[in-house]
Amino acid sequence: MDDFARTERNKVKRLPKRAQYDRETIYQIIDEAPICHVGFTQEDQPVVIPMLHARISDMLYLHGAPASRLLKHIGAGHPMSVAFTLLDGLVLARSVFHHSVNYRSAVIFGTGKLVETGEEKLVALEALTEHIAPGRWADARQPNRKELDATSVIALRIESASAKVRTGPPVDDEADYTLPTWAGVVPLQLQALNPIDDPKLSGGIDLPGYISSYMSTEREPNS
Amino acid sequence: MDDFARTERNKVKRLPKRAQYDRETIYQIIDEAPICHVGFTQEDQPVVIPMLHARISDMLYLHGAPASRLLKHIGAGHPMSVAFTLLDGLVLARSVFHHSVNYRSAVIFGTGKLVETGEEKLVALEALTEHIAPGRWADARQPNRKELDATSVIALRIESASAKVRTGPPVDDEADYTLPTWAGVVPLQLQALNPIDDPKLSGGIDLPGYISSYMSTEREPNS
Repeated sequence: MDDFARTERNKVKRLPKRAQYDRETIYQIIDEAPICHVGFTQEDQPVVIPMLHARISDMLYLHGAPASRLLKHIGAGHPMSVAFTLLDGLVLARSVFHHSVNYRSAVIFGTGKLVETGEEKLVALEALTEHIAPGRWADARQPNRKELDATSVIALRIESASAKVRTGPPVDDEADYTLPTWAGVVPLQLQALNPIDDPKLSGGIDLPGYISSYMSTEREPNS
Repeated sequence: MDDFARTERNKVKRLPKRAQYDRETIYQIIDEAPICHVGFTQEDQPVVIPMLHARISDMLYLHGAPASRLLKHIGAGHPMSVAFTLLDGLVLARSVFHHSVNYRSAVIFGTGKLVETGEEKLVALEALTEHIAPGRWADARQPNRKELDATSVIALRIESASAKVRTGPPVDDEADYTLPTWAGVVPLQLQALNPIDDPKLSGGIDLPGYISSYMSTEREPNS
């Protein structure tokens, strides 16, 4: 896929060797991240809020209650920024100074708009549901008219974006390699533990296959 | 501990029953979160960036390179917001509408200032190191003068804050409890996998105990 244009807005200024601008890398990070952090400015106050998301092509979808101040604000077209961060490991160098983390992060910029048609809303809600639990949309009761009316969906066209990625072992100063300090990487991974049945679950309902296999395999990014 | 005052800035407007304002809850979330997301506004553009952090009492510390535009900006005292999010589980209801996640999140507000004294800088860097790997500070080579000069530390007094917490099973509409759909929670946890030795590790250096036990026990919040 192509690259996002490098502009003042998305250019990575610190450690530019870690920067990536290609859509494929950025979209894989967005798709793998279970949540995102949405930043907006309201009356000169920056606000950051965690949200669920889904991506379809160049559109990012967010959802919430129609009364939400965040959704009203970003649905009105104010500029916003959304960050997606996957923490992959602790990088323990011999010197404190060279400690780091392995991570994949993406930041996108754009303006949101309220999704007005029921059709696009349904498509977005399906993507939001499938993003956190692939296979769930077809199994759960889908939204009725009242529920659709009680859900606001925001679409954000991804206008500009960049990613930063660090992988690999620590990098120490040459003189420090003789120190008797252990150095290496502690990998970190968000893992699913054993599912817990709803205490009100009726008898005879088995755990569906798409849940038992959840996160035991790599999640495939959207095309 | 006491509560943060509820003001227009930190009041949780959506789902206020999930809101918490007490320091103890908020500080536990900050201390357990391995990273945070820092939001600021630069030339009318909201920006969100993931960072490492540490808390000492009512101060949050961030660090980076002196040339970082983020550190320069927030060190100059502009308003900022920092979010800390722990994703604890997927909440799978019988209806798509009632799907949710279990989470603990905190958002703090304040203004940053550059830490000027070497002493406070060292204390902050120790806290930042110990935050990601308790026990590491005493084992690694500590910063020398040149490295201290090449590190900027920002201190942010936590002026205002709130938390949102969701726990427990899904809550469905009464009529949906008879549906033949599995419902429950898939717990999620950030786990440490087996440490990977630096390929340049000298022979005869064992993995330290504070790494082998990393995250096998609950991390204790700072007092």
